[in-house]
Amino acid sequence: MEQLFSEGIKKTPSSFIREILKTTAQEDVISFAGGLPNPISFPINELKESTNRIITTFESKVFQYGTTEGYEPLREYIADRYKAKHGLKFEKDDILITTGSQQALDLLGKVLINKGDAVAIEKPGYLGAIQSCSLYQPSFKEITLTQEGLNTDELESVLQNNKVKFLYTVPNFQNPTGITYSRENRAKIREIIADHDTFLVEDDPYGDLRFEGEDLSYIGGDFLPQSILLGSISKIITPGFRLGWICTKNRELMNYLVIAKQAADLHSNIFAQYIIYDYLSHNDLNQHITKIKALYKEQSSAMKEAIQQYFPKEVSCTSPQGGMFMWATLPKGQSSLDLFQRASQKKVVFVPGDPFYTNQTNAPTLRLNYTNSNPDTITEGIKRIASVM
Amino acid sequence: MEQLFSEGIKKTPSSFIREILKTTAQEDVISFAGGLPNPISFPINELKESTNRIITTFESKVFQYGTTEGYEPLREYIADRYKAKHGLKFEKDDILITTGSQQALDLLGKVLINKGDAVAIEKPGYLGAIQSCSLYQPSFKEITLTQEGLNTDELESVLQNNKVKFLYTVPNFQNPTGITYSRENRAKIREIIADHDTFLVEDDPYGDLRFEGEDLSYIGGDFLPQSILLGSISKIITPGFRLGWICTKNRELMNYLVIAKQAADLHSNIFAQYIIYDYLSHNDLNQHITKIKALYKEQSSAMKEAIQQYFPKEVSCTSPQGGMFMWATLPKGQSSLDLFQRASQKKVVFVPGDPFYTNQTNAPTLRLNYTNSNPDTITEGIKRIASVM
Repeated sequence: MEQLFSEGIKKTPSSFIREILKTTAQEDVISFAGGLPNPISFPINELKESTNRIITTFESKVFQYGTTEGYEPLREYIADRYKAKHGLKFEKDDILITTGSQQALDLLGKVLINKGDAVAIEKPGYLGAIQSCSLYQPSFKEITLTQEGLNTDELESVLQNNKVKFLYTVPNFQNPTGITYSRENRAKIREIIADHDTFLVEDDPYGDLRFEGEDLSYIGGDFLPQSILLGSISKIITPGFRLGWICTKNRELMNYLVIAKQAADLHSNIFAQYIIYDYLSHNDLNQHITKIKALYKEQSSAMKEAIQQYFPKEVSCTSPQGGMFMWATLPKGQSSLDLFQRASQKKVVFVPGDPFYTNQTNAPTLRLNYTNSNPDTITEGIKRIASVM
Repeated sequence: MEQLFSEGIKKTPSSFIREILKTTAQEDVISFAGGLPNPISFPINELKESTNRIITTFESKVFQYGTTEGYEPLREYIADRYKAKHGLKFEKDDILITTGSQQALDLLGKVLINKGDAVAIEKPGYLGAIQSCSLYQPSFKEITLTQEGLNTDELESVLQNNKVKFLYTVPNFQNPTGITYSRENRAKIREIIADHDTFLVEDDPYGDLRFEGEDLSYIGGDFLPQSILLGSISKIITPGFRLGWICTKNRELMNYLVIAKQAADLHSNIFAQYIIYDYLSHNDLNQHITKIKALYKEQSSAMKEAIQQYFPKEVSCTSPQGGMFMWATLPKGQSSLDLFQRASQKKVVFVPGDPFYTNQTNAPTLRLNYTNSNPDTITEGIKRIASVM
């Protein structure tokens, strides 16, 4: 029956992380692999209170079918928060609730990509975006990521020589590198994008988790007609609920996204949407986020220090101001897949660089997550990796 | 920016039901339009108890990322239930939890359809399946549905003359018609499918809701290599949680589905999966379903009686033995869209037939839902429709 399967699925990479997570399931393995929030950061009691309150208050309503766009008060809350924090003028009708921001990527693929269309993405880029786009068989155009952000000469050239459907970016504490685009880099990208007929996707799951430096304004935010902003509760409240959102002021795009969303799963879990809105109305989210940031700052410092102390000097490493990841580069010619094999024998794992490129094997790079281990475990894990470098 | 949108999304119909549901939001409109369960059937207190119990027992685990395949004990429960009720030999590894069974349809589209591929579907067929497949631009082959099930001559001819990727069926209390395929019809379809290199999708969200007659065995169930069975908690526990599943013993298909699922939303809400498994372990689901069936039997009887009393004799109507819908056919030449306009002025709505065909306009047919209104309201609604026929 082999010939019954679609071209798209045959071209879609299975996730390396899935395989790694199986290794990690052994309790004595130290994992820097996944992108898991520290479970001690979940507001368990508050979510329990909210759950009981919404069932008592709304009864059967929280168990019935909901609207495709999402629970209105939650969409309004999200719009208001962007206004308060970033001065953006989104309204509830500009917001579509998605089943995690992973679904937002799938919906964008559905709505924008014909087979062979050009899609621009950071190099290295988020593997989940590469995976979800791959199903729609685009031609990926990789734009090199520097310490400052995107290489804008490359971006300009890619946009001039191709009909690019959208540029996918993670401007804050990028996945996998932890890099944040500078103010100047954002301004330059904004200028370039405004001149082209292409969408700009700003995926921002980590933006709230800045533990150093100052917030920078979005590249497109709400003010380019092609701006698409993605957000999520996964890293600041709970990932298990699978709730994210797409914001755009582009009406035509939003109408198509709503149709695609309906075809995909009718709507996201409405019970979870009620709980989260209730949680947000009865608790101070910023105060909660302050606690998470303190936690991750401590954990990232432990990782930075251990790296400085134990890794050979030829291994370079990014130094993120927030988010969940660091990115290490081995000396040229070394493969992080080989390192991975040796490290996993020492019971420590990470994600080798390969799945973060659309077209590269045996990359010398690797992603290290610091959010799901305590400082002592982090130090021990880095020591173990260093011992096989 | 019009030219940035994909061919697939431009060919995907927006749902007529969405538009109708907006009309229905007015409180004094009687709606036979949606496919909403009666909210009095939701086990609210039991779900509340389960929620509190799982938070107390598992703490942060129910809020963390989960595995793509779904919560293992829930998958095992589903396999065991198929064994107990139908003698099927599914195991947990044959089951993938999806974000409602709507997502199962989207994943099948992703994994099986290349642009232009033939997909066979009942005529009339479930509009959500038409919608989700449309994105992948298949060539639909409609197979006429009779009172007995599929027209097997048409099926045979379609399979012989086309490379059909899959046949989509709803053999129990079909949506939109309420028809159940007969034992003989199932046997004949099984025989035909076994001879062809094509998948068979049996979508069964209503199978548990039989209020008359006897359960019939599945067409493919677990015993054809191309069998795919879809299920859901939406109609027997709660639709708001968006939990359904795909069962198949075809390993290659399952591997591809898991990759597609991961690209689509990583995994379905894990908190909801824990709640449902806890609910199922602490309550008697069959006893709960018995109550729903009694309720829907009463409501369907009220609709049948009202139709017999008030509709003109030239209007024919199906007489379902379970599920949620009846299907009426107006005399030739009459359009149910016209009837819809007149009926909505009398504050009663239904779904006109058009969206249930891949290629027909001004159909003389309409779908009537009886599960979300009490008997008196049903009688009043049917009277109002009759008054404008």
